Amino acid sequence: MTTVVAAQVSLSIGDLDGNRAACLDAIAAAADGGAQLVVLPELSDTGYVFADRAEAAALADFDTTQQGWIEAARATGVVVVGGLCELDGETLYNSALLVDATGVRAHYRKVHLWDREQEIFTPGGDGPPVVDTSIGRIAVMVCYDLEFPEWVRLAATAGADVIAAPVNWPSPDQRDRERPIEVIKAQAGAATYGVNIVVADRCGTERGCGWIGGSTVIDRAGSVVAGPAGADHEGLMVADLELTDARDKRLGASNHLFSDRRPELYGELAPPPP
Amino acid sequence: MTTVVAAQVSLSIGDLDGNRAACLDAIAAAADGGAQLVVLPELSDTGYVFADRAEAAALADFDTTQQGWIEAARATGVVVVGGLCELDGETLYNSALLVDATGVRAHYRKVHLWDREQEIFTPGGDGPPVVDTSIGRIAVMVCYDLEFPEWVRLAATAGADVIAAPVNWPSPDQRDRERPIEVIKAQAGAATYGVNIVVADRCGTERGCGWIGGSTVIDRAGSVVAGPAGADHEGLMVADLELTDARDKRLGASNHLFSDRRPELYGELAPPPP
Repeated sequence: MTTVVAAQVSLSIGDLDGNRAACLDAIAAAADGGAQLVVLPELSDTGYVFADRAEAAALADFDTTQQGWIEAARATGVVVVGGLCELDGETLYNSALLVDATGVRAHYRKVHLWDREQEIFTPGGDGPPVVDTSIGRIAVMVCYDLEFPEWVRLAATAGADVIAAPVNWPSPDQRDRERPIEVIKAQAGAATYGVNIVVADRCGTERGCGWIGGSTVIDRAGSVVAGPAGADHEGLMVADLELTDARDKRLGASNHLFSDRRPELYGELAPPPP
Repeated sequence: MTTVVAAQVSLSIGDLDGNRAACLDAIAAAADGGAQLVVLPELSDTGYVFADRAEAAALADFDTTQQGWIEAARATGVVVVGGLCELDGETLYNSALLVDATGVRAHYRKVHLWDREQEIFTPGGDGPPVVDTSIGRIAVMVCYDLEFPEWVRLAATAGADVIAAPVNWPSPDQRDRERPIEVIKAQAGAATYGVNIVVADRCGTERGCGWIGGSTVIDRAGSVVAGPAGADHEGLMVADLELTDARDKRLGASNHLFSDRRPELYGELAPPPP
């Protein structure tokens, strides 16, 4: 079994030192509890509700955040996945890193941009990375990416045992329902493609924006096994999962999540010959 | 507003007269309540748990079932979508019809076959039909089809306002969870592609097989607005929906369910030029 943790952290726009400390504290606390994978929120260093592009560019300090996670992974042995703001030359990305005790294993740039992110960030052009780590194969994607079933499929068919998803799920549009639709979509993605998903959301009202507080661990059958955390408070959502069970895509005696698909009817290109 | 009904009916293998009467009674009761669309379960005439292919072939009586629905649609003005067993020459299909007062408007053959259906039925080769009716554009798919996001996408991009899905959701594999994963997947499909979904499940234990009783109406935001019905009892799940609102695929001020997709990154073929 692998102990995975979705760390719901309170963040504050522009308070890089405070935000980083909150994330490192969460990693340390999770590691003390036996965590082997810790997922942090999207843009966990800068905060999210930028006034404009210039503010995001001024705040971005990718290297310092990255270095902190490398040190934390070395000190604890934990695999860390988190979101951070990246300025590369003149271009801003809503990025995520996967870091383990050997250093940075994956660097991903969010492809599907939400709302005002489109005024600030450039979308990435690569699919979700899948990294073979000591605890299993981990894919990385960020927030709105997770709402595209195709993105979950790409991660699953590339061999992911678990998808680590830093998110910031804003709450203003939430209607009165028993479970946020973002969590429902993540459950469906997990079950449709047989992959575990760990979602780390944030809390801490920022410039009038609240958050769902949807930090959740979902197993490969689509069941919520920890969380959702709920709004307005920090917390570690902890679950023990047999991550590599996700490699078995059989569904009952006669069905299979991948081979039951009819890609020729979905308008998909034929996969390259092996 | 359009009044839609998912009719959860008790069925019994081989009792074609009884099953048809139960379905026609449900249509009549729904129409009395103001229904404009009534969805019936999968294989609503024959029942589901066939001993073997020969039994299914012997029971299939497509024309009689079809005729009954045409008469009911003419008598009530209701649009009827239901599942039925089809023997075409030597070939069996798990089929569905969309019938209105003008007659049969769509005939669909289930593409994604579940479990032992693979020993009995031949899969269809066509996508979900979308029919422009007096109440809006209605797509048809059957049961396991609905668990493939691509199938929901095809219906939505073809212009469906609502997907009518006859199902038989067996319960033996259900784990202890607050909501069946089949319903979760339908909610996610609705929200991901902005389309209303009406699911009609069955009840009535058959040769040892029980059913979820998951008859549900889901709006285009993915919210359950009627149902799930629950196991072991019949019932009409009724909801009033602005079906054509589903044509607006905007999501907030800056996002769009279709144009936010990155098909070139999903391995999809480019759509043909307009």
